[in-house]
Amino acid sequence: MTLSARPLRLATTASGFDAALAARLHWSADTDAGIEQAVADILAEVRKRGDAAVLEYTNRFDMKAAAMAQLELKPSELKAAFESLPARQREALESAARRVRSYHEAQKKASGESWSYRDADGTLLGQKVTPVDRVGIYVPGGKAAYPSSVLMNAIPAHVAGVGEIIMVVPTPRGEKNPLVLAAAYVAGVTRVFTIGGAQAVAALAYGTETVPRVDKITGPGNAYVASAKRRVFGQVGIDMIAGPSEILVLADGTTPADWVAMDLFSQAEHDELAQSILLCPDAKYIEAVQAAIDRMLPEMPRAEIIAKSLNGRGALIQTRNMEEACEISNRIAPEHLEIASGEPHRWEPLLRHAGAIFLGAYTSESLGDYCAGPNHVLPTSTTARFSSPLGVYDFQKRSSLIEVSEAGAQSLGLIAAELAYGEGLQAHARAAELRIKR
Amino acid sequence: MTLSARPLRLATTASGFDAALAARLHWSADTDAGIEQAVADILAEVRKRGDAAVLEYTNRFDMKAAAMAQLELKPSELKAAFESLPARQREALESAARRVRSYHEAQKKASGESWSYRDADGTLLGQKVTPVDRVGIYVPGGKAAYPSSVLMNAIPAHVAGVGEIIMVVPTPRGEKNPLVLAAAYVAGVTRVFTIGGAQAVAALAYGTETVPRVDKITGPGNAYVASAKRRVFGQVGIDMIAGPSEILVLADGTTPADWVAMDLFSQAEHDELAQSILLCPDAKYIEAVQAAIDRMLPEMPRAEIIAKSLNGRGALIQTRNMEEACEISNRIAPEHLEIASGEPHRWEPLLRHAGAIFLGAYTSESLGDYCAGPNHVLPTSTTARFSSPLGVYDFQKRSSLIEVSEAGAQSLGLIAAELAYGEGLQAHARAAELRIKR
Repeated sequence: MTLSARPLRLATTASGFDAALAARLHWSADTDAGIEQAVADILAEVRKRGDAAVLEYTNRFDMKAAAMAQLELKPSELKAAFESLPARQREALESAARRVRSYHEAQKKASGESWSYRDADGTLLGQKVTPVDRVGIYVPGGKAAYPSSVLMNAIPAHVAGVGEIIMVVPTPRGEKNPLVLAAAYVAGVTRVFTIGGAQAVAALAYGTETVPRVDKITGPGNAYVASAKRRVFGQVGIDMIAGPSEILVLADGTTPADWVAMDLFSQAEHDELAQSILLCPDAKYIEAVQAAIDRMLPEMPRAEIIAKSLNGRGALIQTRNMEEACEISNRIAPEHLEIASGEPHRWEPLLRHAGAIFLGAYTSESLGDYCAGPNHVLPTSTTARFSSPLGVYDFQKRSSLIEVSEAGAQSLGLIAAELAYGEGLQAHARAAELRIKR
Repeated sequence: MTLSARPLRLATTASGFDAALAARLHWSADTDAGIEQAVADILAEVRKRGDAAVLEYTNRFDMKAAAMAQLELKPSELKAAFESLPARQREALESAARRVRSYHEAQKKASGESWSYRDADGTLLGQKVTPVDRVGIYVPGGKAAYPSSVLMNAIPAHVAGVGEIIMVVPTPRGEKNPLVLAAAYVAGVTRVFTIGGAQAVAALAYGTETVPRVDKITGPGNAYVASAKRRVFGQVGIDMIAGPSEILVLADGTTPADWVAMDLFSQAEHDELAQSILLCPDAKYIEAVQAAIDRMLPEMPRAEIIAKSLNGRGALIQTRNMEEACEISNRIAPEHLEIASGEPHRWEPLLRHAGAIFLGAYTSESLGDYCAGPNHVLPTSTTARFSSPLGVYDFQKRSSLIEVSEAGAQSLGLIAAELAYGEGLQAHARAAELRIKR
């Protein structure tokens, strides 16, 4: 049987469009009671027994090891992995890292520096921005081992000034991915442990005799890892817990149809739940994209996953015009948003919610995924309504700075005391009044 | 029986200091299975039945009402509440709001503006910063009804450019707090509903026929509210879930002892679990603070709460020197950190983790709580290791901007394709290659 990929066809003019779109967008993270209980047990054991528990779980789930010391990679192993790569891969990794670093340096400069000002009475107000002391980066092992994720998590932490970056990566059956280790080398990771799953998250959150306790954990993982991250949140910081990856393409018909079709494929090839949506006012162009899909699908090594994703979750949607396409895009708040248009800067200001916006025909999502510079860890499942790409700011925190001058204490003291008495907090009021001269 | 307040006395030179300090700091949020189940039920009901469920719960827990329309306050009621206040209270509220607004405007300018740059080949990279569309602010009713919290939550949202600010505040037995309503008026809240508890959080997160669905919910609440916020996280954004409030005072002995004692009181008067700690190298000064506590406690209207808090969770700690005091402060990562020193700028650079830092003798925490300008919603329970004060940035989100030029697509395409093939993602590689000219 030949594979075919037929994303759902919708038109905004059809009755029932809103419901049909909502149904196609619907996704909810299942919480599996079995996983939840297993994770709760693993966290409790690691918290109580430290290394011994981590070692036991690693032996059970991943690989044989007699001691925790065997589960740490030496810096020389990371370097050797890097040097073992073909020159072209090495150079690509270094170029990508260089661009990601310079983008995040610009980000730090634009939005991550300390600031302060003084009032006329000499009172100083501001915020001091400091890096998180120590972070943990979770890197999945096995088939979804992405060296680019190592760069995207570790480099912003490094740019933020984080003192220690501890990476964990499971190595099922002891198999190490040299590209992942090379990325750790290039990104400046401090220490690497070959542990994974909930036991790795627990080790990072609570610390063990061997694994140092971190302040924040970032990085993707399976359902066990996601559950563990949710549970240790508060004890440590975490990044967002991602749903399936998504792309939305706004097309005015000026970008070659096979470019757009391949961009839809590049989302769909991630996994069967990934979502690829095209919004376009031009019915003929939509036909052309479908034709390109039909033509190119058989050439794709991951055709089966692509077909399942596009058939199950994809959509080609005809809109009344580009303005309406932008409105619908805002409703979807996609992770990746391509403006495949000859006038991308006309539409960009209309787009309020998206993880990353790719402007113009030449900006394929894949360039952003690897090496344009911006982070590829982005909010999914409409969370772009209220959250942001992973960035330097995720590895920094702020402390307010307040230095009230003697003169300032006189005027501010009266205001604070008035409001504090109003709230029935007399010690607050008295503390302000004590600083007022009689 | 006369009340006495005797915070635990510790010295860093004593054996067992670390364990004694850890024991005193220990606090963990209990999760009550009964509360969890009740909240899960309430969320499910409101999600399913909307207004009808909200109305039922409000009738059961707070006040009698026949229709949801009776649970919305008109803008004219907010204005009337403001105008009903004594002139001094009105002016204090307006002065505080003005200062909080101008601080947060400076914050937005310093760290919340869009930015971008172009590479030599014309490729544009940056981030667009946009406000959240609609936020919900939870304001507790009853005895802990703080108008200052209304200002501290609503003003940063307003400065961020949030389109609609929906406030919920329960009014048990129909009793409205005029200062809270006046604060909503001054802060520019869009709509106010007199609902509370988990049902209010559910209404904001899912939307009902009457209450619009929001994108993010902030503001403090009881255990039901906290549990509901945790559960709707992902559906909407939330702020941190706060533990008991804390102050840590670093004193070199130059600030009048009764000022410091009153600052400890002002934390302790919040509730019995609040934590007040003094770190000081000077034993005589510690004695003087204890003497001031003894002298002033009987005068305090909330003496009973203060005594319970200081006896149960307070500590006066003698350190070897100020440097060591700073180290211990970093370990504690306090919500409020006062540097009661004649040379606060000598110590400030040593302090890495704190919600807010108050410099010098005149900067009582209470000035910051009400009107200095910085936000009083701060990370508690050591979460200042990885999180920040509530700010304009909590009501904004970022979208990466990427516009790769034709020339850029040539060089970036080679790098992306190399890495994508390395990860086994061929459609990613092909999407990059299609943009490369043969």
